[in-house]
Amino acid sequence: MSNSRSATAIASPNIAFIKYWGNRDQNLRIPANGSISMTLGGLETRTTVTFDARLAEDLFLLDGTRTTDAALLRVSHHLDLIRELAGLKLHARVESRNNFPVASGVASSASAFAALTLAACAAAGLDLHARMLSRLARRGSGSASRSIFGGFVECVAGQDDQTSFSQQLAPPEHWELVDLVAVVTREKKPVSSTAGHALADTSPLQAARVADAPRRLQICRDAILTRNFPRLASIAELDSNMMHAVMLTSTPPLAYWNPETVQVMKQVVAWRASGLPVFYTVDAGPNVHCITLAEHAAEISRRLRSIAGILDVLRAPPGDGARLA
Amino acid sequence: MSNSRSATAIASPNIAFIKYWGNRDQNLRIPANGSISMTLGGLETRTTVTFDARLAEDLFLLDGTRTTDAALLRVSHHLDLIRELAGLKLHARVESRNNFPVASGVASSASAFAALTLAACAAAGLDLHARMLSRLARRGSGSASRSIFGGFVECVAGQDDQTSFSQQLAPPEHWELVDLVAVVTREKKPVSSTAGHALADTSPLQAARVADAPRRLQICRDAILTRNFPRLASIAELDSNMMHAVMLTSTPPLAYWNPETVQVMKQVVAWRASGLPVFYTVDAGPNVHCITLAEHAAEISRRLRSIAGILDVLRAPPGDGARLA
Repeated sequence: MSNSRSATAIASPNIAFIKYWGNRDQNLRIPANGSISMTLGGLETRTTVTFDARLAEDLFLLDGTRTTDAALLRVSHHLDLIRELAGLKLHARVESRNNFPVASGVASSASAFAALTLAACAAAGLDLHARMLSRLARRGSGSASRSIFGGFVECVAGQDDQTSFSQQLAPPEHWELVDLVAVVTREKKPVSSTAGHALADTSPLQAARVADAPRRLQICRDAILTRNFPRLASIAELDSNMMHAVMLTSTPPLAYWNPETVQVMKQVVAWRASGLPVFYTVDAGPNVHCITLAEHAAEISRRLRSIAGILDVLRAPPGDGARLA
Repeated sequence: MSNSRSATAIASPNIAFIKYWGNRDQNLRIPANGSISMTLGGLETRTTVTFDARLAEDLFLLDGTRTTDAALLRVSHHLDLIRELAGLKLHARVESRNNFPVASGVASSASAFAALTLAACAAAGLDLHARMLSRLARRGSGSASRSIFGGFVECVAGQDDQTSFSQQLAPPEHWELVDLVAVVTREKKPVSSTAGHALADTSPLQAARVADAPRRLQICRDAILTRNFPRLASIAELDSNMMHAVMLTSTPPLAYWNPETVQVMKQVVAWRASGLPVFYTVDAGPNVHCITLAEHAAEISRRLRSIAGILDVLRAPPGDGARLA
């Protein structure tokens, strides 16, 4: 064995139709409820992990810039899990690049921790099954568990580390959906998702949201498997609103919607009422994910760009899961 | 007794800090949860009821215009309750005028049914206690039960017609609050409150909202009685968000917020964070009620008027309950 061993992995972010918000176990990131997402093709995080005996500490370069703050600590902590599994004591250099703009409304922690997990495991000589990779990725970021898989993915909440993992519902080619991300701000969100999850239980509505989750998951799963767009549209918009309902009623309240967010949501609902297949879903930020069918994507994109306050529209079809480069 | 007997009553609308949404009994309008409001001085509905043996049917003139649609039916149905109590068989002419713009974001059904109840009872020769008047007013519009009283008012949800009524918590002079209504649209709301209440139970979050209501009522009651502005601010904003959480997660969803609504809410929160005593509360419509102390009302009003999209700002201090003219 040489002094250094390296691997590169690529992973994509995902957009959840049934969203994860709140943890049953904050430290292990066991989610309070299951979730269902689509992996976003074309948007990629590429991460190289090099374990190197000459390093005195972990290094983390994000888009070329060396990072020394909380992000490095989170990466280092995640590497510890993998080093422990592999019986490895070496520090690592982690180089990560996103091909999509940071703070674009696409959560980068999912692709970041999916790529980091796969690259670090490969570099450490661990050959793990996808389920084990998704459990590991979950420890870094709950939604990263889903980005291990491509296409349409369900995260089973489970009760502990062993039973909390993701699995593929259908491959990318199952359904030609497109996510058009209406970017209304490039500002970094004021409250991180990790901090937000910890507030979920302060809302008097979170328990009811979690208790109702199996019903929503069932409807969403069926809608995806049968390619029923109207059914997916109504359950995904309801689920998005339920998450923001909990956020808005937390202490302190989390108000992620901007005026432009509401404007896009209203337009999307009006377009669907007029016959266009499109629905909205909003993550922990003000940008709006508008989901449509491939054949209508150009028209929806054109309409989104005509709304005042929309800075950009990203486009992503169903994509692949995490893979080695 | 002559062929006709007449009485005129005046009542004001109110703004709820703990809101009523959903009915335990839709027909009797027994609310799902108790509520607390401030009666809005200066804004008035003035209603004259004349029972007249020469009338072949009930007549309803709203702001000078004869009304023959659902509004007349609702007035007529309400008069039936009072005719039955009084053993009266005469039809009535009802003339009602508001001194505030309709669709200004101030719910007019509360003042309308409080004034109608008092005027009709007086014209029918019924001399009822305020509690009985509030029970009767509730049958016409749930929030009208509160407008029978002045100042700060609590509606006790109760379980049936006898136990569901309002009562005064404190008179108008108790606390110099001011409601500044930021009017962002003059459009009539697409879904009436009566229709909206009927949807409340379709939200998976309504039961949790109702179950938590006694806690919020207690905090709000204490905050008013001790004139604790920050405490009132946080519980009223939470309660407003909880009602809209239920609305947004109903089937079909009720999305009352406009982009301007969100803009004003964000500004109000920012102003309070900078030290100004002000909070928002939003009813079943897009206009925003901004509650502040009298000494800061001019400054808040000036700031509201400087926001793009604000058409007008109404101003109301705590006002009196329903009274005969």
